[in-house]
Amino acid sequence: MNKELLNCERVWLNVLPATMRPDLVDYGLLEPHAIGVRDGVIQALVPMHELKGSVPAHWQDMKGKLVTPGLIDCHTHLVFAGSRAEEFEQRLKGVPYAEIAKRGGGILSTVKATRAASEDQLYDLALPRVKALMREGVTTVEIKSGYGLTLADELKMLRVARRLGQSLPIRVKTTLLAAHAVPPECKDDPDSWVETICQEIIPAAAEAGLADAVDVFCEHIGFSLAQTEQVYLAAAQYGLPVKGHMDQLSNLGGSTLAANFGALSVDHLEYLDADGIHALAHRGVVATLLPTAFYFLKETKLPPVDALRRAHVPMAVSSDINPGTAPIVSLRMAMNMACTLFGLTPPEALAGVTRHAAHALGEQERLGQLRVGMLADFVVWSCAHPAELSYLVGVEQPVCRVVNGEETIHG
Amino acid sequence: MNKELLNCERVWLNVLPATMRPDLVDYGLLEPHAIGVRDGVIQALVPMHELKGSVPAHWQDMKGKLVTPGLIDCHTHLVFAGSRAEEFEQRLKGVPYAEIAKRGGGILSTVKATRAASEDQLYDLALPRVKALMREGVTTVEIKSGYGLTLADELKMLRVARRLGQSLPIRVKTTLLAAHAVPPECKDDPDSWVETICQEIIPAAAEAGLADAVDVFCEHIGFSLAQTEQVYLAAAQYGLPVKGHMDQLSNLGGSTLAANFGALSVDHLEYLDADGIHALAHRGVVATLLPTAFYFLKETKLPPVDALRRAHVPMAVSSDINPGTAPIVSLRMAMNMACTLFGLTPPEALAGVTRHAAHALGEQERLGQLRVGMLADFVVWSCAHPAELSYLVGVEQPVCRVVNGEETIHG
Ligand SMILES: [Zn+2]
Ligand SMILES: [Zn+2]
Repeated sequence: MNKELLNCERVWLNVLPATMRPDLVDYGLLEPHAIGVRDGVIQALVPMHELKGSVPAHWQDMKGKLVTPGLIDCHTHLVFAGSRAEEFEQRLKGVPYAEIAKRGGGILSTVKATRAASEDQLYDLALPRVKALMREGVTTVEIKSGYGLTLADELKMLRVARRLGQSLPIRVKTTLLAAHAVPPECKDDPDSWVETICQEIIPAAAEAGLADAVDVFCEHIGFSLAQTEQVYLAAAQYGLPVKGHMDQLSNLGGSTLAANFGALSVDHLEYLDADGIHALAHRGVVATLLPTAFYFLKETKLPPVDALRRAHVPMAVSSDINPGTAPIVSLRMAMNMACTLFGLTPPEALAGVTRHAAHALGEQERLGQLRVGMLADFVVWSCAHPAELSYLVGVEQPVCRVVNGEETIHG
Repeated sequence: MNKELLNCERVWLNVLPATMRPDLVDYGLLEPHAIGVRDGVIQALVPMHELKGSVPAHWQDMKGKLVTPGLIDCHTHLVFAGSRAEEFEQRLKGVPYAEIAKRGGGILSTVKATRAASEDQLYDLALPRVKALMREGVTTVEIKSGYGLTLADELKMLRVARRLGQSLPIRVKTTLLAAHAVPPECKDDPDSWVETICQEIIPAAAEAGLADAVDVFCEHIGFSLAQTEQVYLAAAQYGLPVKGHMDQLSNLGGSTLAANFGALSVDHLEYLDADGIHALAHRGVVATLLPTAFYFLKETKLPPVDALRRAHVPMAVSSDINPGTAPIVSLRMAMNMACTLFGLTPPEALAGVTRHAAHALGEQERLGQLRVGMLADFVVWSCAHPAELSYLVGVEQPVCRVVNGEETIHG
């Protein structure tokens, strides 16, 4: 028997790998292979026709089924309390936004409910959302804070996110998004909130090891370019990588600023311009597309996909799960919308939730591709062609979901 | 104890009913009630405060949870073989439609795969699609033929649909849609196919009791108004109610024709005009909206929702699950799209998958509302407000799903 496979703890025989390697075209499809795993790492990828000798009985034969890297949802706000369903109903019944806000709607209603919820309650509320992603084949999810908007409540949200990663077979990356909105307490002095973020929240989150990155909602209804820069400078001081909600409703120059800070990703990007694209390309920043928010808000301005493609900017795709603008708890629906609404090809959509999503989390050396030396996160699928993953929505297709080398049962 | 409840086999206490009764506003919400069931029928609906005496221990306390009529998906093509994922990929890579057709794509690729599949294979392929709907709270689903396009293959599809209803806790209504496309064998003489439908397939389906209704794709790329009328006349001869795929890409006058035949429903309706609306209103025909197909095809012409509303035409909402134009296996996504893309309110969307969907299947006397005398199909939900059902997608929310008075476990 092949030595590199015999040294493995577990071997899956006869899988059809969509490796998502950047040096191969489209999905990076290979002929049928055996995948061997040890210590949570892919140790061997051997073509079936090179297998020598008889194989141990405990090795699983996957009978030619498709395998991809585990899916990565690199932008979510899935820890929150409260529901905005009634606000949705009011809006559709024609109640003006100002009136909805007066009735206590909008992001501050989520802030109020999230502050009032205990850590255990927030965990219980987030659990079915994470499990829904797991059933779709997601093995890594990013979760942002941003509905606490006090030191204690932001850290509470991040602890819930960490706990989800510890108790479920899914990797969780956390992002501090205290600069999501100005809390009601600071509404007459937004700069004081930015001060609090920079001087208290970032230091505390960094010290507690609760944040893997720092994010800002840079928008005329969010934080200015100058405020964003302040937050990024504080993050840099604590060695935390940055990312940004950029160019969703207008262009403040946020993508260029983020690129200058070597951001992991800039996200949304409907109003991204040529200068911004140039900056992203120059600094190797990932452009994360969030088509479910575009859909739910009935936006009409499309992100500049063709220009990003021509500039070779890596494009990630994510669900943006949140109660205000994307109550669609499905990365697969986001992939379908990335193709249908934004014109991505299915290989681009799959790269967007594997290789490029890993990149958006700073994990491109360990996740997002099937290759020897990478972490053993992958999914074996019941469908025959990887295009199916962007095309079909709603039917569970993972046959086997492996996280850190361990096969997991979802649900 | 209340006599009407004591006579029941099963009682669910303390549910918050969204009755969907047409004589009440919005969801027809009532105060907390007890629901009693016997012989598969709702026998009692009693306000909790009218409960007298102590309740039997085996009665379930639902603790104030929301209950709605079971959801009804009244327009699907979910029995089929093959996948159109690669065609989706080709299209997004810019391959022209004519070239895709030349490569064997389009509806005829589904016909080819469906003909080649055995009844058992078709059943196995459809199973996960039906189960996905069940997990969302669907208790009745309509399933059309239309990918067989021979007598034997159309009946095979209908037998598979019937079998799904017999083996799973879900009601299935079948619709013969032999007039879905012209089979390749008749492409030079489409009228001969219409003859076969009228003289062989409708009689055979009727005799075997395999079709609950007859449908036609009335469109310039489908069947003409005259051909549609021929099929409707044959259906009428066999006492089968009719429905139609109408006004999706153009207006041939199909809705008015269907109304004149007392059709159960007309479906799609992007190009429905004022005359058609008048005819629907006059004859009480249901207008079924299919927003996932609108989304997937990137249509821009919206169905005339405001005018339908003003004319008091009942609007159903359905998933249209099919491999060519709606690979979104989710009635909940269809509800969200009906609101987001078509501007329905959440109460209208919920009526569209309960009361009006029942109407579209000719079952308005037995299904689609919570009231004494109706069949005991209902769902108890984990969410607090019925607007949530149109708002949140992807998270499983049924706490308890009752079909014909039996509580069922999905999956
Ligand atoms: Zn976001
Ligand atoms: Zn249809």
